[in-house]
Amino acid sequence: MTLEELAARISALDCVTILTHGHPDGDTAGSGLGLCYYLRSVGKRANVKNSDGFPAMFSYMTEGYEDMDFEEKTVVSVDVADTKLLGSPLEEEYKDRIDLCIDHHFSNRNFAKESYVDGDSCATCLIIFKVLKILGAKPDKRIADCLYTGIATDTGCFMFEGTSPEAHRAAAELKEMGCHAAPINRIMFQIKSRGRILAEQKVISTMRFTDSGEVALITITNDIIDHYSIDRSELDAFAGIPLTVEGVRVGITLKQQAEDPGSYKVSIRTVDTDAAAIAAKFGGGGHIRAAGCTVKGDADYVANVVMQTAAEAL
Amino acid sequence: MTLEELAARISALDCVTILTHGHPDGDTAGSGLGLCYYLRSVGKRANVKNSDGFPAMFSYMTEGYEDMDFEEKTVVSVDVADTKLLGSPLEEEYKDRIDLCIDHHFSNRNFAKESYVDGDSCATCLIIFKVLKILGAKPDKRIADCLYTGIATDTGCFMFEGTSPEAHRAAAELKEMGCHAAPINRIMFQIKSRGRILAEQKVISTMRFTDSGEVALITITNDIIDHYSIDRSELDAFAGIPLTVEGVRVGITLKQQAEDPGSYKVSIRTVDTDAAAIAAKFGGGGHIRAAGCTVKGDADYVANVVMQTAAEAL
Repeated sequence: MTLEELAARISALDCVTILTHGHPDGDTAGSGLGLCYYLRSVGKRANVKNSDGFPAMFSYMTEGYEDMDFEEKTVVSVDVADTKLLGSPLEEEYKDRIDLCIDHHFSNRNFAKESYVDGDSCATCLIIFKVLKILGAKPDKRIADCLYTGIATDTGCFMFEGTSPEAHRAAAELKEMGCHAAPINRIMFQIKSRGRILAEQKVISTMRFTDSGEVALITITNDIIDHYSIDRSELDAFAGIPLTVEGVRVGITLKQQAEDPGSYKVSIRTVDTDAAAIAAKFGGGGHIRAAGCTVKGDADYVANVVMQTAAEAL
Repeated sequence: MTLEELAARISALDCVTILTHGHPDGDTAGSGLGLCYYLRSVGKRANVKNSDGFPAMFSYMTEGYEDMDFEEKTVVSVDVADTKLLGSPLEEEYKDRIDLCIDHHFSNRNFAKESYVDGDSCATCLIIFKVLKILGAKPDKRIADCLYTGIATDTGCFMFEGTSPEAHRAAAELKEMGCHAAPINRIMFQIKSRGRILAEQKVISTMRFTDSGEVALITITNDIIDHYSIDRSELDAFAGIPLTVEGVRVGITLKQQAEDPGSYKVSIRTVDTDAAAIAAKFGGGGHIRAAGCTVKGDADYVANVVMQTAAEAL
């Protein structure tokens, strides 16, 4: 499907349920809410759903949002690479009846009736931005805030390798539309609760290195999360910590699962190595510089096996 | 002077010494080296000087740079708001004979024979970028790296409030010219030595708040710098720490002076308050969201007087 065809599909939508992935991040939330607000602005009926609700930090995007009442005709997923990522209960309810998938993950499982997947796009929000441009939309400030959020999130505020000239130009246009970039950046990248700052120090103290110093690993246990009362949504940013150490090329973050303490969610970030290939060894996937998987076992076992696999990949 | 007039002045330059401010940051270094490399690329003789040398982290900009031998005809300063900032020994040598000043600080002291000061520009590098565009230059990758460095540095990697659409578009063009944005971002914003990570934890433990929690202050003593063997050039980034705490509107960083331990360099960062106005109460200056001054006294005295002034400004 070309971008123009995607724009045509979107302009024909009505009575649509938009699904974001579970534990929504800025890109899936911004894509879902931005698309929903756009559709509503042109008189269509649209809702956004996900399994976990939107975190409080996204209130600038969700403020004033209320579900509309209509009979669902079409289901669209945004930034969802795999129906598993819909989480419970939406995975069960929707996995076999997604009409249109809009995504930017190379690893997309092609689960929908029709899909537009651009693995070269920095963010799903950037795809939505380009579609709205084709459709001649005049996004209001809230839509601009949503789309900026996803582009900023998935480029690490324009810091990551994949940040394209197109992403910068979209940010320029969204700023001209009145998006509140600086406060959004502050919420997404800067502000930390006092609890989080203390938890970070504790997590940094768990950092382990391979002998070469090229692989670093931190471990976030349920004990740390509980002790410092930090919100699980604040934990995503921890995955960037290991790569901040001089000489580290693969940064690994283990996060103990609340519902299954014998299992760790593993985030892999890399400087110049294929992160998705490392994650794939454990049944996971993602992008070339940021990927993830889940590994069962105690923290030491998981740390050793993932660090060894990462060291071999170098 | 208009930008076109500045471009005409620059195109007429030859045998020029370009001065950056002392303890050079990314913007003054990128402006000075970028302008120098451009002038050399069109057959002019040009050198870059500063009082302290360029830090090792800027080696991607300075690699291959060697002073040329010529009789100096013109002196240009870049990103220098006040001749005091030239530091020793260049202040003494040049303060009264700067021909052309190119700067983006509102507080510029107008010390040069001719000045182009655009306080609305995110970075002096952005001014140089626009000048080169007017001159029809085709910057090579090294020049693009220099100019990107300054724009990224002074916008906090596009995070700060003043980041303009123009800054994003310049970044897009510089990426298309082949600048190495991601490795530069990693050097400028991400990588920390293990010593710095430990020093940061120590400095965070010195954090004090006003009762309202809206003013936070950290103190970097010579003891901390010596104990963790961190380079003073790494300390600039510490000034961002206090503002990362939820609820903080004014973040203050005290840095004990190596050569004068009874004196503290004060960095003031703000969310929505005039930082330059607070700094001005102590004879300093800067930008609306980032400013600085030097205050004599012991750490407790300086902390109390600056925090009180900041609290009154809120």
